[in-house]
Amino acid sequence: MLKAPVHQVAGHKANEGKLGPLVDGSGRFYKPLQSNGRGSEELVFYKSFFSDPTIPDRIRSYFPAFYGTKELEGSDGSGLVPHMILEDVVGNLIDPSVIDIKIGARTWYPHASAEYIGKCFKKDKETVSQQLGFRISGLQVHNTTGWWKPAKKLVHGFGIEDVKLTLKKFVSSNPCSNMVEPDCLFASTVYGGILEHLLELKSWFENQTTFHFCSTSILMFHDKGSVGEVKLVDFAHVVDGQSVIDHNFLGGLCSLIKIVSEIINSPDYS
Amino acid sequence: MLKAPVHQVAGHKANEGKLGPLVDGSGRFYKPLQSNGRGSEELVFYKSFFSDPTIPDRIRSYFPAFYGTKELEGSDGSGLVPHMILEDVVGNLIDPSVIDIKIGARTWYPHASAEYIGKCFKKDKETVSQQLGFRISGLQVHNTTGWWKPAKKLVHGFGIEDVKLTLKKFVSSNPCSNMVEPDCLFASTVYGGILEHLLELKSWFENQTTFHFCSTSILMFHDKGSVGEVKLVDFAHVVDGQSVIDHNFLGGLCSLIKIVSEIINSPDYS
Repeated sequence: MLKAPVHQVAGHKANEGKLGPLVDGSGRFYKPLQSNGRGSEELVFYKSFFSDPTIPDRIRSYFPAFYGTKELEGSDGSGLVPHMILEDVVGNLIDPSVIDIKIGARTWYPHASAEYIGKCFKKDKETVSQQLGFRISGLQVHNTTGWWKPAKKLVHGFGIEDVKLTLKKFVSSNPCSNMVEPDCLFASTVYGGILEHLLELKSWFENQTTFHFCSTSILMFHDKGSVGEVKLVDFAHVVDGQSVIDHNFLGGLCSLIKIVSEIINSPDYS
Repeated sequence: MLKAPVHQVAGHKANEGKLGPLVDGSGRFYKPLQSNGRGSEELVFYKSFFSDPTIPDRIRSYFPAFYGTKELEGSDGSGLVPHMILEDVVGNLIDPSVIDIKIGARTWYPHASAEYIGKCFKKDKETVSQQLGFRISGLQVHNTTGWWKPAKKLVHGFGIEDVKLTLKKFVSSNPCSNMVEPDCLFASTVYGGILEHLLELKSWFENQTTFHFCSTSILMFHDKGSVGEVKLVDFAHVVDGQSVIDHNFLGGLCSLIKIVSEIINSPDYS
C-alpha cells in the first residue's frame, strides 16, 4: 500500500533499493529517521515546534502536520525503521507543479564539523546560494504532455538568470520550450497566493528568535494554475535561535519575494 | 589645521605615524585613498552612488556627502596622498556617543582572493557576525566623567549578550558601570530616531538590487541623549548587485532592528 511519492522533486528517494520517504495515497507521508542522527534531530524539531504555544496557528499551517512516529519496513529492505508520520502536502493535488527552494546563503549549521562546513561552503559558493540567498533543489512543472522535470545536475548548475527563468517557467503553460519565452500564464494566480504566504512568513521571521532553519526548503506548488501554496520542509538542521532572528533565512526569503514580485509585476504578464 | 578625528571609533587611525583620515574642524572629513586599491574602489562607489538618479534623496541622506578628492600630505608623513573629501558626520556634535556596527553575517566580497575570504570567514565565525548578522567594530559613549570607550580587543571578543548589553549602554547615562544595569535613560529618544531611519533603510534594501555592501558599517550616534541619527560608512567593498537584493546586508539590518526594538519596547525603560 505504501509507495515512493510520485511528485517528490528533491531529497533522498525511496527507489533503487535506497531508504527514502513513502506515501499511503491518502494524505500521509512517512519519512524514515536517518541513522546519522539527522532524523532524530528532525523529530525533536517537529515535537518542539508543534507543542510550542507561541507559534501562531497561521504560521503552523505552513508546516506539514505531524502525526507521530511508526516502525515500518524501510524502502531499502533493511528491516524495520522508525518513520515520522507527516502530512503529504501535495497528496491531494491531481497534476501538481512543485518547486523545492533551499533557503539561505549559508546552508550549514554552526555546530557542524569543519569538514561538513567546508563541503556546504563550497556548494553554496558553486551554486547560486551565496549570490542569491537561496537555490532551487528540484522541480517539476506540469504541461499538456506531462511534466517538465529537469535533471538534478542541470538544476545545481543554474546561474542567477537560470533561476529567474525557471521561476517564470514554473507558472507557464510552456515550460519545456527553450525556443520561446515562458508565457507566465498562471503568474498572477499562482504567485498571487504564494506572495501572500511568503509575506506572512517574512513578518514572522522578522520577529521569531526561537528557531534557526539551516538547510530548510520552501516548497511552492500549484495544481495546473490554481492559487499557489507554500510549505516549509526539511528540519534536520534546525538549531536554537539564541534570542537572535534567523537573518540567514530571512535574507534569502526576502530575495525570493523580490524575484516573485518582479514576475507578478512584469508588464509582460499582467 | 587638519587633525586626526577625536571621535573616530573604528578603522585606520591617523596617529602613531600611520596613514588615516583627517578632519578640518568645520565639517569635512579627508579619507586617504589606500594604496592597495581599496581606496580607489571606494572612490568609484561614491562617484557612482551620487550620480545615480534612481537613489531617492532620503536614502542619499544616509550616506556622507561627497565633495571630490584632493592631494594632501598624508598623516604618515610619506608625502602627498589623494584624499576623498567627505562630510564629517559627527563633526557638529558637542559630546557625541558613537557606535560603528559592521553589517552582515559575511564580511567578504565574492571576487576576493581565497586567502582574504578565509581570513574574513574565520573572523566572522570568531566574532558574533555569523550568529548575529552584524558585529560592533568600535564605540564611545559619553557620560558625566568623559567617555566610555572599550578597547578594540574587548569589543571583538563580545558574545551575543555583550552586544545586547552594549546597545543598552549606548543609550544609558551609566555606561561604565558593570555593577548596575544600564539605565537606558535615552532609549526612547535616541533609538526612536534611529529605528525610524533603520526601517527606512530596510524598505530600500528590500528592493534595491544595484549595490551589495560588503563590510559596510552603520554608524549610529547621538549628542547626550538627542534624537539618534544613522549614517552608512565604508564602501571599499561595494560590488555590483547583479539584479539580486543585498540579502546579506538586509538580514543583518533586520537583526539589528529586532534588538533595538526590544530595547525600546522593554517594560523596564518605557
